[in-house]
Amino acid sequence: MIINSEKYLKELFNLLSIPSISAQSGHKKDMEKACLWLQKKFISLGFKSEILPTKGHPVVYSELITDHKSPTTVLLYGHYDVQDPGNLDEWTSEPFKPEVRSGNIYARGANDNKGQHMTWISALEEIGKSKNKLPINIKFILEGEEEIGSKNLEEFCNENKSLLKSDICIVSDTDSISEDQPVITYGLRGIIYLEINIKTLPKDVHSGTYGGNISNPLNILTNLLSSLKDEGNKILIPNFYDNIRKVSTKELKQINNYPFGSNEIKRETGAKQVVGEKGFTVQERSGIRPSLDINGIWGGYQGEGAKTIIPSEAWAKVSMRIVPYQDPNKIIEATEKYLKKQLPKGAEIKIMTLAADSAVLMDTNSKYFRLAEKAYKKVFGKVPFYHLHGATVPVGGIVKRVLGIDTIYMGYGLPDDGLHGPNEKFSLSMFEKGIRTNIDFLKSI
Amino acid sequence: MIINSEKYLKELFNLLSIPSISAQSGHKKDMEKACLWLQKKFISLGFKSEILPTKGHPVVYSELITDHKSPTTVLLYGHYDVQDPGNLDEWTSEPFKPEVRSGNIYARGANDNKGQHMTWISALEEIGKSKNKLPINIKFILEGEEEIGSKNLEEFCNENKSLLKSDICIVSDTDSISEDQPVITYGLRGIIYLEINIKTLPKDVHSGTYGGNISNPLNILTNLLSSLKDEGNKILIPNFYDNIRKVSTKELKQINNYPFGSNEIKRETGAKQVVGEKGFTVQERSGIRPSLDINGIWGGYQGEGAKTIIPSEAWAKVSMRIVPYQDPNKIIEATEKYLKKQLPKGAEIKIMTLAADSAVLMDTNSKYFRLAEKAYKKVFGKVPFYHLHGATVPVGGIVKRVLGIDTIYMGYGLPDDGLHGPNEKFSLSMFEKGIRTNIDFLKSI
Repeated sequence: MIINSEKYLKELFNLLSIPSISAQSGHKKDMEKACLWLQKKFISLGFKSEILPTKGHPVVYSELITDHKSPTTVLLYGHYDVQDPGNLDEWTSEPFKPEVRSGNIYARGANDNKGQHMTWISALEEIGKSKNKLPINIKFILEGEEEIGSKNLEEFCNENKSLLKSDICIVSDTDSISEDQPVITYGLRGIIYLEINIKTLPKDVHSGTYGGNISNPLNILTNLLSSLKDEGNKILIPNFYDNIRKVSTKELKQINNYPFGSNEIKRETGAKQVVGEKGFTVQERSGIRPSLDINGIWGGYQGEGAKTIIPSEAWAKVSMRIVPYQDPNKIIEATEKYLKKQLPKGAEIKIMTLAADSAVLMDTNSKYFRLAEKAYKKVFGKVPFYHLHGATVPVGGIVKRVLGIDTIYMGYGLPDDGLHGPNEKFSLSMFEKGIRTNIDFLKSI
Repeated sequence: MIINSEKYLKELFNLLSIPSISAQSGHKKDMEKACLWLQKKFISLGFKSEILPTKGHPVVYSELITDHKSPTTVLLYGHYDVQDPGNLDEWTSEPFKPEVRSGNIYARGANDNKGQHMTWISALEEIGKSKNKLPINIKFILEGEEEIGSKNLEEFCNENKSLLKSDICIVSDTDSISEDQPVITYGLRGIIYLEINIKTLPKDVHSGTYGGNISNPLNILTNLLSSLKDEGNKILIPNFYDNIRKVSTKELKQINNYPFGSNEIKRETGAKQVVGEKGFTVQERSGIRPSLDINGIWGGYQGEGAKTIIPSEAWAKVSMRIVPYQDPNKIIEATEKYLKKQLPKGAEIKIMTLAADSAVLMDTNSKYFRLAEKAYKKVFGKVPFYHLHGATVPVGGIVKRVLGIDTIYMGYGLPDDGLHGPNEKFSLSMFEKGIRTNIDFLKSI
């Protein structure tokens, strides 16, 4: 099978050139530009395509309905928003000027998620060129808020429940192990992302004159944050571990067989040590155990030299990755209670929830999982590994709750693609193999 | 006595208009401009004046030598550098466009220290107008690094030891209680100012994929900072409290009589609670007990919304105010050892010393203290309070060590002048009273 990779790569480059950063209000126009680009693309493929509003960034909804009787409906999902590129000095080429170097596409969003959903759009274009139309319905949603927690996706799905009615959802937003070894992800962790603000003073004051008599918001913040985990990396928020499922010996073995251990993490991240919750393996800590990280912190003087102030306010961003059956709302409540209880007199705390989503776990016994396995085997020559992913793609939980369907994560990323960091990349060969696997999978339904 | 306040105010405004921020290399030219302005001023008063280099910002050294036999030599000290103004939105008028509102001069440096050392320059100008020349030598040093810890002042004094030889040093860089109640400061706390950097990764990584297996520099930093003090605000660095002097009952009574309690601090700072080391009064915590504050912290994502990263690095600025007989070098060493001991494997720490200076304590029995008392009584109508100040003016310790002389702190600031914060001010009436007191003091020697 010869596919027109050159053309599909060129189109991916066009999409990657749009800095559609959902977290920053200054990029609102770029978000709209990405929507219009996608809508135009779908219409050119014969789809009906609409830009549907949400309370935040809109969703691009596109469908191609078959005239076959009682067809299967496949719901495809992707997100057109990307992460902020961070420090530009750390990028070899500009994040929004995509470039191919040594078989990889470099750009913000190359893997996450533009490269990955373009494997589906390209597969649909390729299929559309043949005269044998697919006897299935295709529905495609592309959201614009995945990188900021998919805050409005559940409401959108609820409001468009009948429009989105489908049999199975497919998402390409995860990784394979290598260019030869594909992976089917059957579960992902959920997320809670909080912003914390501490205030004790209306203005900064002199740390000499008042030092020793003022409640310092930075000291309070570091004390609070330090109280969240013990030395063995156990999370200390009361009832945090309630309801976590007991994993069977068989599944545990499968989890621990997955080639994502200390060596892989060291190689991928450059960390000198792999450190985590005491009593669990590296694979378990990422697949079936929750985690907690401070993602950002700021307050007081951050410039050159010494400024002798006690600052008036302090801020932090803190996120937790949660596992199946942990309730994000209960955990947020418990976290607020735990932090407020420790707050000294005269200090004020504000806690904002920036994202909250449950973990998801799929039933791997359905026929769609078998068809995905077959397509992978045909293109990659290998049966895929089954994997629980440490990251969060909220759509899986949402379509399960709202539409009652499972999601298969057919990820074409590679572990060293550097998503969310500088020099994000996507392998050219995975782009092409992805397109081929998708074509086979869709044709097999 | 009528003094030419209008003229002196105009000249102070000229000096205040120069943004001589020592901490920021971008203001190097402004530092030079301030030096030249001061040199020109001294020369116009008949002084010999030179701009003397240091490893950092230069010192303006000026002298007026009498032909009287065996004269007393008075060393006057001030600093022409100012703090960074911080957030400009919080200033009512621009920090470097001085303005008088309701009897106060508003500008960065109005009190700290341009307004205060201009009381001496103006006093010298006023005295110079009369034909009776003072039978004493005046030596005046104006340094440019007080706000960044006077790092080069000790070396400067050592290198110019015979040039600076004097009998007593006078510094106006502290506060009175009110416009009616003057204060002589006979001791000040010292300072240790550190910058801490933690690194665990060469680049930021995804907090979902790697969360649970990576040593997060922000979590490490908050743990380390949180380990510095206990719940009762006792500092936990080993041997930190070694050698602190036992204060006599008489002195303790004097310290606790000083009107700087919870109410004053609440009024001056806007804090809702005054919080400090358990077992000590507000006055003791500021005068004879050391303190520790985080002055700044940063790392990871600080923008709008949620970015799901584990950052590669984290930073903090931490300062301690130390009391007589605490050795800053030993404490820095103990702090480094204490923090390094707690550092988890795979993490790197860098600790930079931005300032280190001992506390000072003067012998209040000398005749110069009596003469200062008299001058105050004449101008203010009241005997001054004797006070131990919580802040740090390194010159006192340096001239004691290098030149073997004591320093009298004759401060004309007011407690609500807001040094180091927005809307710093200096009272017009204190400016004039300061000039008058200085004239009387100098004439009485």
